[in-house]
Amino acid sequence: MNRSLVMKDETLDDLQLKGLHVIQKKEGFRFGVDAVLLANFAKVKKGDNVTDLCSGTGIIPFIMAGKTEAVKISGIEIQEEMVEMANRSVEFNNLGERMNFIQGDLTNIEFMKKLPKADVVTVNPPYKLQNSGLINPNDKMAIARHEICCNLEDVIIACRILLKDNKRMYMVHRPDRLVDIITIMRKHKIEPKRIQMVHPNTKKAPNIVLIEGQRDGGTFLKWEKPIYVYNNKGGYSEQIEEIYGK
Amino acid sequence: MNRSLVMKDETLDDLQLKGLHVIQKKEGFRFGVDAVLLANFAKVKKGDNVTDLCSGTGIIPFIMAGKTEAVKISGIEIQEEMVEMANRSVEFNNLGERMNFIQGDLTNIEFMKKLPKADVVTVNPPYKLQNSGLINPNDKMAIARHEICCNLEDVIIACRILLKDNKRMYMVHRPDRLVDIITIMRKHKIEPKRIQMVHPNTKKAPNIVLIEGQRDGGTFLKWEKPIYVYNNKGGYSEQIEEIYGK
Repeated sequence: MNRSLVMKDETLDDLQLKGLHVIQKKEGFRFGVDAVLLANFAKVKKGDNVTDLCSGTGIIPFIMAGKTEAVKISGIEIQEEMVEMANRSVEFNNLGERMNFIQGDLTNIEFMKKLPKADVVTVNPPYKLQNSGLINPNDKMAIARHEICCNLEDVIIACRILLKDNKRMYMVHRPDRLVDIITIMRKHKIEPKRIQMVHPNTKKAPNIVLIEGQRDGGTFLKWEKPIYVYNNKGGYSEQIEEIYGK
Repeated sequence: MNRSLVMKDETLDDLQLKGLHVIQKKEGFRFGVDAVLLANFAKVKKGDNVTDLCSGTGIIPFIMAGKTEAVKISGIEIQEEMVEMANRSVEFNNLGERMNFIQGDLTNIEFMKKLPKADVVTVNPPYKLQNSGLINPNDKMAIARHEICCNLEDVIIACRILLKDNKRMYMVHRPDRLVDIITIMRKHKIEPKRIQMVHPNTKKAPNIVLIEGQRDGGTFLKWEKPIYVYNNKGGYSEQIEEIYGK
């Protein structure tokens, strides 16, 4: 292991997936269950080109690299420091032939149009409206959590630009934004095709939504059975253990 | 009991709610769990005027009469025969001062505009697209199940016409139509404010959606905890027993 790739303010975290590791800041936005659930929800075929937006540490691309036969996996991220860190994770895992991270602003239409088209787009965007709640004084975390650099409509427009005809995007978000998500997706002709709700347990309302959209897709929405993160004894549910164990 | 109000091809069904009964056709669209769930989901205050669209046998208004302190409850139904039957149920229950059923076509804007404005509108509309599936040869059932006489957009427009400023509508529908429901509601400025999913049990995808919309409401969507109809032993869940027992 080439630990010289890991800086003092960073940790090297084992994904428990084919020996893959990802570098993360000790203090900063660290990946959680959302990223793992999204990587599990997305459907990737052998030979697909996958692009991940708002890529952060690159967690979703690394899980994709471990779990799928995607031929090429790219991540787009606006924060230069994160891109540099994610590319060190690529080097650490010797995945330079399949993966790369690119610094760029997804609201820059000309930049987006120059990127290679994708069979699959994944995105774990900032959840919170720009003016909602207290903005975290740590900028890097605020950018990851609040719609400062891009809003939901920017994300959907970027997905449409990147996707090949009739190909699909996969997003993780908060259920309280589902009205916005659905209306904006349909506005930009990315038809919502599949939704899966994630609940803390069977007795609680959903707090995570996974949504699949097809570029120029026809009208038909499938609901998946829900995922419950915890069982009634307070431990992880069998569903979550299976997803983490895959 | 004045059983002379019940015809030979009809049954008189006890709602197990304050002695209320409703007349239904022996062969025809008979009320199910959807109507009971919608009546439970809707929030009605003392003194409210309630209007139910696509009212059929009038089941939702009768449950409302038993469970709420609404001062006036009206049902609108296109099929003359059903309206006549529902008004016999009103007579049977001696509810003529609080309830009435009116024959009318909710797509007739002039007719709708002449109706009294409502504090609460409920609707259990036809679920199926006009061209989807086999159309039931029994016309009365086809009208109740398929979008023959009115489609989802007609229903939402009718709700907007009937509702007083900032008042709310409550609809029961199928989750696979949620993209249409949300986009059409927002198009007509009835903001989806609250959603509750109903699942057969904890292991299955939802098959019923309950949705609350507010006329000219602000953007905020609340998700309720789900309802599971059956428990894991195959009997009715405690939630359903509580709803039926209320």
